[in-house]
Amino acid sequence: MNPYPDIDDCAHQLDGATFITPVETNLYRGNTSAAYGNMVGPFGGVIAAILLKAVLIHPERLGEPVALTVNFAGPITDGEFIVTTKVLRTNRTTQHWYVELAQGDQVGATATAVFATRRDTWSSTEVRFPVARPAATIERFPPIDRAKWTAAYDMRFLHGQPVSAKEDTDDRNSVSCLWIRDVPLRPLDFVSLAAICDAFFPRIFIRRPKWVPIGTVSLTTYFHADSGTLQMQGDRPVLATARALHFGGGYFDQTAEVWSDDETLLATSHQVVYYKE
Amino acid sequence: MNPYPDIDDCAHQLDGATFITPVETNLYRGNTSAAYGNMVGPFGGVIAAILLKAVLIHPERLGEPVALTVNFAGPITDGEFIVTTKVLRTNRTTQHWYVELAQGDQVGATATAVFATRRDTWSSTEVRFPVARPAATIERFPPIDRAKWTAAYDMRFLHGQPVSAKEDTDDRNSVSCLWIRDVPLRPLDFVSLAAICDAFFPRIFIRRPKWVPIGTVSLTTYFHADSGTLQMQGDRPVLATARALHFGGGYFDQTAEVWSDDETLLATSHQVVYYKE
Repeated sequence: MNPYPDIDDCAHQLDGATFITPVETNLYRGNTSAAYGNMVGPFGGVIAAILLKAVLIHPERLGEPVALTVNFAGPITDGEFIVTTKVLRTNRTTQHWYVELAQGDQVGATATAVFATRRDTWSSTEVRFPVARPAATIERFPPIDRAKWTAAYDMRFLHGQPVSAKEDTDDRNSVSCLWIRDVPLRPLDFVSLAAICDAFFPRIFIRRPKWVPIGTVSLTTYFHADSGTLQMQGDRPVLATARALHFGGGYFDQTAEVWSDDETLLATSHQVVYYKE
Repeated sequence: MNPYPDIDDCAHQLDGATFITPVETNLYRGNTSAAYGNMVGPFGGVIAAILLKAVLIHPERLGEPVALTVNFAGPITDGEFIVTTKVLRTNRTTQHWYVELAQGDQVGATATAVFATRRDTWSSTEVRFPVARPAATIERFPPIDRAKWTAAYDMRFLHGQPVSAKEDTDDRNSVSCLWIRDVPLRPLDFVSLAAICDAFFPRIFIRRPKWVPIGTVSLTTYFHADSGTLQMQGDRPVLATARALHFGGGYFDQTAEVWSDDETLLATSHQVVYYKE
């Protein structure tokens, strides 16, 4: 029933970071992980992965994830947390979940998820696979010391890496395209894909050289691939694109696509992010 | 505190359809409205507007909506429903909500919402306002009998109206661009904007001439405008675009933008939709 490893078997740091222990039905305990630390508290992508995993390993789960929305309600501090799950409704082929991460009496993050059993249907991808030279021909972007989680990903930018203070930004936009994979190598699954969908540098740092406090407030991911398709990707890097549509009034949005290296659209992901100034 | 009218003052059918009566703190009663009926049950956009309104009229509300995710958990039948609200967390400038619509002991729809007080910041819109001739130069798209809600909108397509059985669809895509406004005329606010963000024909009917059962399972809207900006739009039509990125395995996504007629991006909206075949 549970395709995910016990903590003793967590060879990979992502499996350790997303490890949660069932205490009773619909209640898990977990701990934040230093390997996925951010400037303040944990990397949001790993929080999203944890909330999704609470459903993935749930004995009442039906099917596979189609949609996941994570709201970051307030600061999460390093240390222990509780995850609670609730089945809101189970239909013939779809199931709706509510998941909450709390520390003490404070809600740190919430998620709603739609799971479904998929069927073969007519299919079509309208958005185009980006033109991209192979990952091996590009140098790895160096991890950023004050955002520890960046060392947990191998990122190779085709374009749109964070802007440096020296660059001219007059005609710059916020579009990025990069190859990305887990460090160390890890076969792709829904847990790692959910985290990768948040593993983009904030768009404002692609657009402007100035550092300002930022924080994602809401993140929605649509999974277009089933577990079989993710398995075929193995541990090879996926191709990811991200862009902002609008910055203003203290919030900007981001829309992203994640592709397998054989040009299958695995997920699309959207978020809205607070920024200061 | 409550900027929305009493039911006796509901000159507009949208205010009637989204009218909910507070029964006690965090509990409202409402009724579906024939004017916004869909093929089965009510139009999802009005459900989204009702769930948002439950927060908008709540005495504990902080600020204005930034993000709204609505999950359609199961069929909603015509008649009475209950809406419950819960403040999950209130911070200095942001507030997180959970909202649920139920009929009997069945959850029909859920929402999470992020509200915030906005501040003036650096701003930029990276996506372009579509090239569009004025609404007055385009004929209104005729309402569709079996989807009553379509008569509650004046839609004028620049391109991408639902495909007819006679058309050649070989090189067709799912992109639409249209002017849209409420019928009768109604000044824009968050309630009507939330509904408009779901007032697109399902992308599969833009792409293929074949009728199949469909249903949105999850809808996320990011509001980029504040109430002052919405007020300036008045009752003039807004410009809306929508496209699908991927169809497959029984689900397709849709991503949309809604613009004021003076080229301000009011909202971006994303959804994932079930389809059969």
